[in-house]
Amino acid sequence: MSGNTFGTLFQVTNFGESHGPAIGCVIDGCPPGLPLSEADIQPDLDRRRPGTSRHVTQRNEPDAVEILSGVYQGVTTGTPICLLIRNTDQRSKDYGNLTMTFRPGHADYTYWHRYGVRDPRGGGRSSARLTAPMVAAGAVARKWLSSRHGIEIRGCMTALGDVDLPREDWSQVHQNPFFAATARHTQALEAYMDALRKSGDSVGARLYVEARGVPVGWGAPLFDKLDADIAYAMMGINAVKGVEIGDGFGVVRQRGSVHGDELLPQGFASNHAGGVLGGISTGQDVQVHLAIKPTSSIRLPRRSIDVEGQPVTVETHGRHDPCVGIRATPIAEAMLALVLVDHALQHRAQCADVSVPTPRLPAQPDDQG
Amino acid sequence: MSGNTFGTLFQVTNFGESHGPAIGCVIDGCPPGLPLSEADIQPDLDRRRPGTSRHVTQRNEPDAVEILSGVYQGVTTGTPICLLIRNTDQRSKDYGNLTMTFRPGHADYTYWHRYGVRDPRGGGRSSARLTAPMVAAGAVARKWLSSRHGIEIRGCMTALGDVDLPREDWSQVHQNPFFAATARHTQALEAYMDALRKSGDSVGARLYVEARGVPVGWGAPLFDKLDADIAYAMMGINAVKGVEIGDGFGVVRQRGSVHGDELLPQGFASNHAGGVLGGISTGQDVQVHLAIKPTSSIRLPRRSIDVEGQPVTVETHGRHDPCVGIRATPIAEAMLALVLVDHALQHRAQCADVSVPTPRLPAQPDDQG
Amino acid sequence: MSGNTFGTLFQVTNFGESHGPAIGCVIDGCPPGLPLSEADIQPDLDRRRPGTSRHVTQRNEPDAVEILSGVYQGVTTGTPICLLIRNTDQRSKDYGNLTMTFRPGHADYTYWHRYGVRDPRGGGRSSARLTAPMVAAGAVARKWLSSRHGIEIRGCMTALGDVDLPREDWSQVHQNPFFAATARHTQALEAYMDALRKSGDSVGARLYVEARGVPVGWGAPLFDKLDADIAYAMMGINAVKGVEIGDGFGVVRQRGSVHGDELLPQGFASNHAGGVLGGISTGQDVQVHLAIKPTSSIRLPRRSIDVEGQPVTVETHGRHDPCVGIRATPIAEAMLALVLVDHALQHRAQCADVSVPTPRLPAQPDDQG
Amino acid sequence: MSGNTFGTLFQVTNFGESHGPAIGCVIDGCPPGLPLSEADIQPDLDRRRPGTSRHVTQRNEPDAVEILSGVYQGVTTGTPICLLIRNTDQRSKDYGNLTMTFRPGHADYTYWHRYGVRDPRGGGRSSARLTAPMVAAGAVARKWLSSRHGIEIRGCMTALGDVDLPREDWSQVHQNPFFAATARHTQALEAYMDALRKSGDSVGARLYVEARGVPVGWGAPLFDKLDADIAYAMMGINAVKGVEIGDGFGVVRQRGSVHGDELLPQGFASNHAGGVLGGISTGQDVQVHLAIKPTSSIRLPRRSIDVEGQPVTVETHGRHDPCVGIRATPIAEAMLALVLVDHALQHRAQCADVSVPTPRLPAQPDDQG
Repeated sequence: MSGNTFGTLFQVTNFGESHGPAIGCVIDGCPPGLPLSEADIQPDLDRRRPGTSRHVTQRNEPDAVEILSGVYQGVTTGTPICLLIRNTDQRSKDYGNLTMTFRPGHADYTYWHRYGVRDPRGGGRSSARLTAPMVAAGAVARKWLSSRHGIEIRGCMTALGDVDLPREDWSQVHQNPFFAATARHTQALEAYMDALRKSGDSVGARLYVEARGVPVGWGAPLFDKLDADIAYAMMGINAVKGVEIGDGFGVVRQRGSVHGDELLPQGFASNHAGGVLGGISTGQDVQVHLAIKPTSSIRLPRRSIDVEGQPVTVETHGRHDPCVGIRATPIAEAMLALVLVDHALQHRAQCADVSVPTPRLPAQPDDQG
Repeated sequence: MSGNTFGTLFQVTNFGESHGPAIGCVIDGCPPGLPLSEADIQPDLDRRRPGTSRHVTQRNEPDAVEILSGVYQGVTTGTPICLLIRNTDQRSKDYGNLTMTFRPGHADYTYWHRYGVRDPRGGGRSSARLTAPMVAAGAVARKWLSSRHGIEIRGCMTALGDVDLPREDWSQVHQNPFFAATARHTQALEAYMDALRKSGDSVGARLYVEARGVPVGWGAPLFDKLDADIAYAMMGINAVKGVEIGDGFGVVRQRGSVHGDELLPQGFASNHAGGVLGGISTGQDVQVHLAIKPTSSIRLPRRSIDVEGQPVTVETHGRHDPCVGIRATPIAEAMLALVLVDHALQHRAQCADVSVPTPRLPAQPDDQG
Repeated sequence: MSGNTFGTLFQVTNFGESHGPAIGCVIDGCPPGLPLSEADIQPDLDRRRPGTSRHVTQRNEPDAVEILSGVYQGVTTGTPICLLIRNTDQRSKDYGNLTMTFRPGHADYTYWHRYGVRDPRGGGRSSARLTAPMVAAGAVARKWLSSRHGIEIRGCMTALGDVDLPREDWSQVHQNPFFAATARHTQALEAYMDALRKSGDSVGARLYVEARGVPVGWGAPLFDKLDADIAYAMMGINAVKGVEIGDGFGVVRQRGSVHGDELLPQGFASNHAGGVLGGISTGQDVQVHLAIKPTSSIRLPRRSIDVEGQPVTVETHGRHDPCVGIRATPIAEAMLALVLVDHALQHRAQCADVSVPTPRLPAQPDDQG
Repeated sequence: MSGNTFGTLFQVTNFGESHGPAIGCVIDGCPPGLPLSEADIQPDLDRRRPGTSRHVTQRNEPDAVEILSGVYQGVTTGTPICLLIRNTDQRSKDYGNLTMTFRPGHADYTYWHRYGVRDPRGGGRSSARLTAPMVAAGAVARKWLSSRHGIEIRGCMTALGDVDLPREDWSQVHQNPFFAATARHTQALEAYMDALRKSGDSVGARLYVEARGVPVGWGAPLFDKLDADIAYAMMGINAVKGVEIGDGFGVVRQRGSVHGDELLPQGFASNHAGGVLGGISTGQDVQVHLAIKPTSSIRLPRRSIDVEGQPVTVETHGRHDPCVGIRATPIAEAMLALVLVDHALQHRAQCADVSVPTPRLPAQPDDQG
C-alpha cells in the first residue's frame, strides 16, 4: 500500500536510503524450520555488489548482511527475519550540487513533487542501492524454493546496447563481468563499455531470467496471476521499462497454430507461453525478459531546471554504472524468487484439498541454451 | 490475495463464470458524491461487447449492467457498488466435448491442476468474458478521474498480426471495428481477418493505451510504483504476454543522452519515459504498449492429451474471436483507469500535507498522433 | 481497507443497503471441492431472519439466498462465490421523517459526517440487515470447518437485560425465541419483553459463542492473533460494545496461580484462557462473550438535532427489534466461523512444514454447560 | 497476514526476539514533512521500560532507540522509518530449564505447536518486550495526531487486582509507579504489591485509555469500524482478555432510553457510546477499557508437562512483572494512536470530497475525571 512491502504471504518490507546509516528489510512469513545463516545470503549480495569490475560504479561497499531476528540456532523460527546492511562508503559530497536541480531521466523531479522533501544523498530512497535488501530477501526465498521444491532460478544478459548476446552456455555467466551466457563476446563488450565510459554516456540492456522446476498449478486466475505478479515485480526494478513472458512481443505476429503449445503424453512440445497459462504455472520453465533503460546520471551536459523552474545545465560526476543492466541480473533473479515463494505459500493455503491424479507432465528442459 | 480483487483503496472484486447465471463486481472505496447511473457504464461495455462485427465472436449478449448498491438518488454514497450483468446467451453444448481434454495454449490444463475441478462451460472463470465487469468498474473510475482531475484515457490497436497500424488520427478509433487510429488500413484489415477466419487460425495484436492529464506525483517509490502497477494490471488481462512503458524494449539500444527527457521551463522536451520516473508520474502522458497473443481456441487440429494423459486431437468449433486483441482496447483503458484511481486515492492519503511551490510543469501534449 | 471486506485468505466482501434492490457478498478464497448449495446456507439465514417471533422486528423478508457463481455441479470451484439476497419488503416510508434528523445512539450522525450523503431508507448501509450476508458466508465457512476439521460452533444468549440466563442445556437453544440455553426462563423472558415493548423502550443483552474442536496451533503471534481477530470480528457486529475471551474482565481480580491453566498428560486441567494463549489456539474450546447495546431506535421521545443543528424531538415508529441481541447469536457464530476459516488457511500456508511429535493434548470438553 | 504488521496506510512491521540481537520496527506510510528525532520517541519508551520501580521486572535495559531511515535533516521524508532497539541485558540462563517444558498460561505450548521450533530465551517472540517497538511507533503516530489534529491520548490503571482506582486526578498518573489517576491509593498499592511479590503469585489489572479531540467521521462502516480496529489492537496486546468501548458490558442491563446519547445544539448530552457510533467517531472522547490477565510466569509451583508429554512441576524464577498491567498503559496508548492515525489517513483518501456544512458539534469534555 505505502509502497515498501513486497508480497502477501512471504512479505518483504524494505527500508533505508543510499547514504543513510543502513539499508535492510524485514521478511515476514518465511516458514519455520529452514536452516539459514548469513552465509546463505552473502553470495547473492556479492554478485550484485558495486566495485567488482571497472564497468560498474566504483563505490566500495562490502554490503555485509546481519541477521537481527527470526533465526534461532541456525534455523528460521517462523517469526520476522530482519536483515541489516550498514552503509559504509558515503561520499555524499558527490551529490551536493544536485540537490536543487533535477537530473533528466531521474526520479529527482517526481520524488520532490510527491513528498515535498527528499534525501538527495546518492539518490536517497530512489537509489538502485535499495535493491540490495531485495537480493538478500531473494536469497532466503531461493533457499526455501530449492530445498522444498528443487526450483532453480538463473538469469543472464541477452543484449548490452547494440550487442546481442546469445544464451549458449550458462556455465559462462559468472566467468565474465557482464552476466553473459556466452564466452565469445567478452572482449567486444569490454571494448564497447570502455568506449561508452570514455564518451560520458550510458546505454540500456536486455536481460533474461528463468525458473526451472516450478510445479504446475501455481498462480491465481484473475488478478494475482503468476505472470502479472512477475510483471509487477520486474517493472518495479529500477530502470526497467518492458517485461515479456515467454515469446513476449513476438506473439503479435504469431498464428495461434504456432503459439499454442501442444501437449504430448511425454510433455509439452514447446514453450511459447513461457511457463504460464491463464495466470497459472504449466510446470515448464518460467521465462521472463526485461528491458533496462540507460543510466540517467551521465557526464554529458543535459538541459534541466532547478527547483525554482529556472533553466540549468546538469552534468553528473559521481560514481555511476554506465549500464545499470550489468548488475541487474541478480536482482531480477531475486524478484522472481520472491514472486514464486509467495505463490507457493498461496497454493498451500488454498489448494491443499486438491488432488489431481493424472497427468502431471514432466517439466520440459529449456532448449534455448 | 485470492486473485479476484484488484486495487487497494478503490477495490474491485470480480465474480462469475462465462456460462453461470451472472458475472459482476463489487467496487469498494469509490468516494461518495459522484453522480452515477447505468448510463455512465453501458457505453464502455458496449464497446467491448461481443457480436458487434463479423471479426469478433458471434455470441450475442446485451451485457446490460445493473447497479445493485452504493448509489442513492443518482449519487454514490461511499459504500460498495455492486454491478451485475446477467448471462443470457449460454450455448454450453459448444464446449461439451472439451471437458475431458486440454486445448493447447489455453488455461484448461493449469486450472485443472490448481483446482482439481473446473467449470468448463465457455472457459468458465478463465473466459475473457470476465473482463466485462472490469470494463464496468473502469467506467466508474474514468468518470471520477475525469470529473475530479480532467484525466482522459484512450487506446487503439497499433498492430494486427503482420499489419502495423500508425497512430495518426484518434478520431478514427471508433469508426472501424479494429480500434485503429487510422482510416487508411480498414480495407486491408477486413481482408486480412477474412482470410484468417477462413484458414481457421488466429493471430496476435499490439495495443497502445495512454492517460492524459495525470498530475505529477502519483505513484510510490519501491514496490507500488505506478508503472509496476500498470504492468501488473496489463499482464493480468487475458492473453497479454508483454508490457512496455514509454519506449519499452526500445531502451535497450538507446543512449542515456537520448533517453533522459530534458526539462525546460516550459515543460519536458520529450517523453521517452512514458510519463513515469522512479515509479511516480511526471505529469506527462502515461504511455503503455501491450502484446496480445493469438486466441488459443482455433479450428485447426492440434495435438493434445486428455485428463488420463492419452493423446487426442483438439479442434475448437465454438464461437471465438480470431484475434482477441480486437476487443481488448476498452479493457486496457479500463485497467489503466483502475490503476490511476487507486494511486489518486493513495496520494490523497499520504501526501495531503505536501505543498511544493514550483515548478509544476505543464503536461506536454503527445506528439505521436 | 475500505471497510467492506472481511478476512485475508477467505475474504468476504459485503454489499447492499437495507432498502436497496439487494444485499449480498462475494466469498473469495473458499477452497475448491466443497459440496455446496443454497440448502447449506438457508437454515442459518432463517435463524437470523426477522419476523420469526413477536419479540423481533415484524419486517417480513424471506431472505432467500441465490448462489450466482463459484459452484459447478454442486461443488465449489475455488473461484469467487457470489451470494445474492433480494430485498422484498421495503416500507421506506417508515423512515421518511428521519432523513433530516439524527437518532440518538444511531449511526445517522456519523455516516452523515463521513460521507456527506447517506441512504436513509431503513438505516441504509448501517442497518443490521447487512449481517445477513455474513451469516450466509459464515454458513459456507462452517461447512468447510466441520467437514475438514470437525469443528462445531454454537452460541446462546446469557443475559437479556436484567435476566441472567445460565448455560445449562444446549438442546434448548432453538426451542425458544431467545436462543437461551435453558428451558426455565422462557416465560419470564416473554413477560419481560412484552413489558419492554409496551414501554416503548429497548434493552441490551449478553451472548456467548464457542468453537469446539479447533486444533492447537491456529493463530499468529503479534497482530493477527486469533483472539485479536475474534475481538475485531465481534466488535464489528452492529451494537456490540464489549468482547471477552475466556474469563474476560474476570481476570482483573484473578491470581496467576488460578488463571494459568495447568497441563496434565491427559489434557488441560481448566480453560480460563478461553482456548487461546499468545494469540494461538490451545486445542481447547474457543470461548467468547459479547455485550450488545440496546436498540437505538425506540418509541420514547428523545432530544436530538436536525442537519441544520436545530433542536428536535425524535420518536422512532418503524419496525425495530426491542433487543437486537435476540437475533445476534447466529451472527456471532458466523463471524467466529469466518475468523477460524481464515486462520485455518493461514496455518496451511505457513506451517505445512511443521511436524510436532508430542504432545498434542486431547481437546477438553467445556464443563460449563 | 503473517502477523507482524499492524495497520494499512500507516503500517508498522515489528521484528525481534526478547534475547536476540535487537528488536525494532519499520513504519511505512508516515506522511512526509513531520519533524522527528529520537527525542520524540524515547520518553514513551522510558515510561514502558523495565526496571523503573521495584514492582516491575528488574531487567535493566536502556531501550535506546535509533532511527535508521526515513528521516532527513530532522524531518520525515515519507519513506520507511526503521526504529532499532538493541537488546543489552540478556540473562538467558534464567530460562534454560524451561525450554523443554510448558509454563501454564504461557504461549510456550501454542508456539511450539504452531512453529515446531521456538526461541525460548526470555519468551522469544512472545515476550512482552516486543511491545517496545509498538510504543516507539505509537510515539510517531501521536506526534502526527497531535500536530495535525490536536489529538491527545492518555491512559491510566483503573484496577490493580482487588483494588479499584478512581479516575479522579489525571495529573497523578506519572507521580506513582502504577499509572493510577489518583494520589490516595499509592500506599495501599505498594503494600498490596509487596505482599503479592512475597507470595510468589501475580494478579490482573484493568486499564482505561482515551483519545481526546478526534474529529467526527473517522472510521468505516462494516468491518474496518473504528471500534473494531481498537478491539483488535487492544486484544492483540499481550495478556489482554477483554475490551470495552464506552459503557462496555454495562450496556447489557441498560435501556435504550438511557444508553442512546442525546444530541443538543451545543453538543452530545452524554457519552455512553464511548465516542463511536456505527463504527465511526462521533467527535467525543474515544473511551476504551481493557482487562489484563495475571502474569503466567510465577514462582509458585504449577503442574505441567514436558515436550514428551510427561508430567512436570514448573516454577519460574526469572525476572518477571508480578502484574504486567502496570507497564501496559503506555502500550495501550500507543496502540490507540496507531489505530487513529490509520483511520485519519483512510479518511483523507476516501472522504476528501466530502463537505458537510453543519452541524459539527463541539467535542465534549469527559466528565469522569
